[in-house]
Amino acid sequence: MPVLLDANRAPPLSALLRAIPGGLVQSIVAGSEQDSDPCIAGLGALSSAGPSEISFIVHAKYLEHLSRTNACAVIVLPEIEVHLATQSPPPSFARVVCKHPYLLYARIAQWFEWAIQPPREPTVHPSAVVDPTAVLGAGVTIGANSVVGARCEIGAMTYLGPGCVIGDDVSIGVSGRLHAHVSIYSGVRVGSRAILHSGVVIGADGFGFAPDPSLAKGAWGKIPQLGGVVIGNDVEVGANTTIDRGALENTVIDDGVKIDNLVMVAHNVRIGAHTAIAACAAIAGSTVIGSRCTIGGAAGVAGHLTIGDDVHVSGGTGITNDVSKPGRYTGVFPFGEHAEWQRNAAVVTQLWSLRKRLRALERE
Amino acid sequence: MPVLLDANRAPPLSALLRAIPGGLVQSIVAGSEQDSDPCIAGLGALSSAGPSEISFIVHAKYLEHLSRTNACAVIVLPEIEVHLATQSPPPSFARVVCKHPYLLYARIAQWFEWAIQPPREPTVHPSAVVDPTAVLGAGVTIGANSVVGARCEIGAMTYLGPGCVIGDDVSIGVSGRLHAHVSIYSGVRVGSRAILHSGVVIGADGFGFAPDPSLAKGAWGKIPQLGGVVIGNDVEVGANTTIDRGALENTVIDDGVKIDNLVMVAHNVRIGAHTAIAACAAIAGSTVIGSRCTIGGAAGVAGHLTIGDDVHVSGGTGITNDVSKPGRYTGVFPFGEHAEWQRNAAVVTQLWSLRKRLRALERE
Amino acid sequence: MPVLLDANRAPPLSALLRAIPGGLVQSIVAGSEQDSDPCIAGLGALSSAGPSEISFIVHAKYLEHLSRTNACAVIVLPEIEVHLATQSPPPSFARVVCKHPYLLYARIAQWFEWAIQPPREPTVHPSAVVDPTAVLGAGVTIGANSVVGARCEIGAMTYLGPGCVIGDDVSIGVSGRLHAHVSIYSGVRVGSRAILHSGVVIGADGFGFAPDPSLAKGAWGKIPQLGGVVIGNDVEVGANTTIDRGALENTVIDDGVKIDNLVMVAHNVRIGAHTAIAACAAIAGSTVIGSRCTIGGAAGVAGHLTIGDDVHVSGGTGITNDVSKPGRYTGVFPFGEHAEWQRNAAVVTQLWSLRKRLRALERE
Repeated sequence: MPVLLDANRAPPLSALLRAIPGGLVQSIVAGSEQDSDPCIAGLGALSSAGPSEISFIVHAKYLEHLSRTNACAVIVLPEIEVHLATQSPPPSFARVVCKHPYLLYARIAQWFEWAIQPPREPTVHPSAVVDPTAVLGAGVTIGANSVVGARCEIGAMTYLGPGCVIGDDVSIGVSGRLHAHVSIYSGVRVGSRAILHSGVVIGADGFGFAPDPSLAKGAWGKIPQLGGVVIGNDVEVGANTTIDRGALENTVIDDGVKIDNLVMVAHNVRIGAHTAIAACAAIAGSTVIGSRCTIGGAAGVAGHLTIGDDVHVSGGTGITNDVSKPGRYTGVFPFGEHAEWQRNAAVVTQLWSLRKRLRALERE
Repeated sequence: MPVLLDANRAPPLSALLRAIPGGLVQSIVAGSEQDSDPCIAGLGALSSAGPSEISFIVHAKYLEHLSRTNACAVIVLPEIEVHLATQSPPPSFARVVCKHPYLLYARIAQWFEWAIQPPREPTVHPSAVVDPTAVLGAGVTIGANSVVGARCEIGAMTYLGPGCVIGDDVSIGVSGRLHAHVSIYSGVRVGSRAILHSGVVIGADGFGFAPDPSLAKGAWGKIPQLGGVVIGNDVEVGANTTIDRGALENTVIDDGVKIDNLVMVAHNVRIGAHTAIAACAAIAGSTVIGSRCTIGGAAGVAGHLTIGDDVHVSGGTGITNDVSKPGRYTGVFPFGEHAEWQRNAAVVTQLWSLRKRLRALERE
Repeated sequence: MPVLLDANRAPPLSALLRAIPGGLVQSIVAGSEQDSDPCIAGLGALSSAGPSEISFIVHAKYLEHLSRTNACAVIVLPEIEVHLATQSPPPSFARVVCKHPYLLYARIAQWFEWAIQPPREPTVHPSAVVDPTAVLGAGVTIGANSVVGARCEIGAMTYLGPGCVIGDDVSIGVSGRLHAHVSIYSGVRVGSRAILHSGVVIGADGFGFAPDPSLAKGAWGKIPQLGGVVIGNDVEVGANTTIDRGALENTVIDDGVKIDNLVMVAHNVRIGAHTAIAACAAIAGSTVIGSRCTIGGAAGVAGHLTIGDDVHVSGGTGITNDVSKPGRYTGVFPFGEHAEWQRNAAVVTQLWSLRKRLRALERE
């Protein structure tokens, strides 16, 4: 599973591969028991694919799954095909030999995603509330009960799902996809081919307060957040993630950034191109992150820091200083059975004195 | 507090207890100063209950609160009743003797919750947008501005609050309760008696990307998430929690699972029956968690792991390997005054060399 | 940037400062090249402000930025003005001398925020669904598709954005601002001048369950959450934050509390006045936090604890015991290059035995 297309719509393997851009396919080898050009109705993992599905193997460690697969075709690395070609009996499934099997799988999945889309007439739902000064490009869809503010510009072919609320003076590029319940505050700019999942909030106030004793002892006065948010092209933002507007300057997300669910991007953060941020991570205010970084799930980066390009932060890690050298960085307390952790954690609180005691012994 | 019912609707204690299923009540002992069968208008904690409320005590350490309570009736453990029966003067409140006082309190609270519900006529609000191919069972309520997609099946007595958005081909079982602003993407299956709180997002795309240098150096190509989400019966999901759809297979939540707020359940995760996950926890992709586990607040479980049954992960803990043995697991850095932490944390970064120095001393 | 007002609306510096309450301005010193009373069209950071903007410097370490600024006026500390007054050539920009430059900047930003508001006619949008028993004060705005329940009381001048859902028996004070997509469950009380950002959920059920083996082995029975939430005045709550209702008593947020995005406030928590909680933090059930505390980003406070006044918890820190003494507390694993972390983390799991080995050596 999943089988995605009815048998009468499932393309022959050769036709499917011709539809995939990129010249990724090195060769096609017929299986022993198949139709020499089987029809592909869907994709599946090796262990669960059915006889009308194509699967893929990305590493020799999965060879065992491969031997048992029911898929009618499998995308394989050249080195695995070498192994299969000498197998006796030969595999029943066809092989698509490719140096980048994961990428080819992704492109085939994209083809199927396009193929299974119901025909949809772009439309502005009658219940949508669109300001008369908003400009909607050709083929824009606005879902039921969505709200689009004054002077907004929504680019051609962009889709807004039901219940989206877009403030004033927001621009969204072409071919975007906003799922239900996206909230975009006024003055935000989003590029083209954006994918924003449900519950995303772009442009809420950054967390800015100044101590104001004239209000009360310890009271905070609000600092209005007068900047905006600028998001580049090809950015995807996961469900319930929040990206705050800047205090004076903008919060900036560069092209190709991919952000997972429940992520916090604070005011005046800058995220470099193609950086990927996993779920529940948090980037504090004014921090700059370079290009092609990865930030692991539940990691945190403190504020006013600079993280260079090609830096990889492990999940659960707290980054508290600038990091300029590319590489992987980690800071996580190792877990264990509770009683063991208790004993070791108790010693952590004495480490400084332990080191002094060690030094004292060394001097003897 | 809270007092929940007017005096004329408050049931006598004996009648209230007869309405509670389960044979939990061992005996009822009249208080010295009360009406022998006081009317119960609500529930309260020992220290704040008023004279028309019932309270409960779950442990002898709360005996001091018990001596000062104003409640007219208290649910007590048998061993506490032994103590009270010899007290002089005797307690003024009635006692309901029960081996499981917390469970009895829960069931009485459920009775009150039912009793205080305003009479509500199941209805599809005129502003709701329900696809003509959707099938709504008997007694279904659809709130204002909610949207229900094509071919959906909503089971009898299920309640959708205002502003819910349900995609196409979604099925929801009977007697469910979806609070306002729930988002369910297409192709999701939810069982019966589900409780989904506001801001929950079920079925957003898992975080799936393949490196695609043909787009740009370091660029990510999107892997469409073609699986779904399957949620069993009696599942509760807290506010703003997100449960992503699978890449090919489904993300699966078994019967009786209870998930708190702001939790991340990534694509292709499987959560076993009756497992409870506290707020802000995150379960990364393809991880399998067994039955009757508890995952503490802000804990994280890395991807592609297998956690067995009856495993209990402490709050704030990062699980980075399989765990098969039942028990409690913890990995948290002990906190302290900042200057002390700084000294100890500095030594943490030298632990490996400290151990070498210790070994060197041991060899002398 | 940002320039906020057209040139014909930009006030002269002297007039702008007269509009700012609080007697914060010590003196104004004309710049050498400016109009002696330049018109201020906006605010900017020192390094990016344009010639019609005012900026500010809060610390001598920014003096280098000051020397290069294009701002026509800068708010400076008295000690910095001493330095500037002797500069040759003298600065081109005017100086506003003030002992609290950050607070003055905040108040000027508030003035601009008020000045740039489009004239807005308070209105109940025709698509809003407002229960006939709800009472709306003078000048209340209810946005498109919002829903207001029975017997609600919304105070004068309060603004609800589009797509808000307010349950029954909710009271909100005066001059509040609820952004789009706020969810408030029944029976919640919110004070005056509240700011609630998009996706906020107030009053969802606390995470309350009692083991109920009569349902199934390991099964949980739901404990209805019959308390409410009470929020004081001047509280701000960030995007997608959740504040749960109490089990019997209320969850209570005192005056002047500021909560960032994606924060979890569990049932029966009490937060003291003017406490600030940064993004992704989590406060577990029944914990009491004092006044004027700060809780850092992604910090966690375990349940049933008492944290006193003026306690400052660093980001990423887990608080697992009561804290009564004011001060700063931290508990974070120091990060490093992955290979180094691996070596040190391995020793963490042996700390208890390392200490025993050290003691053994000391006895020799």
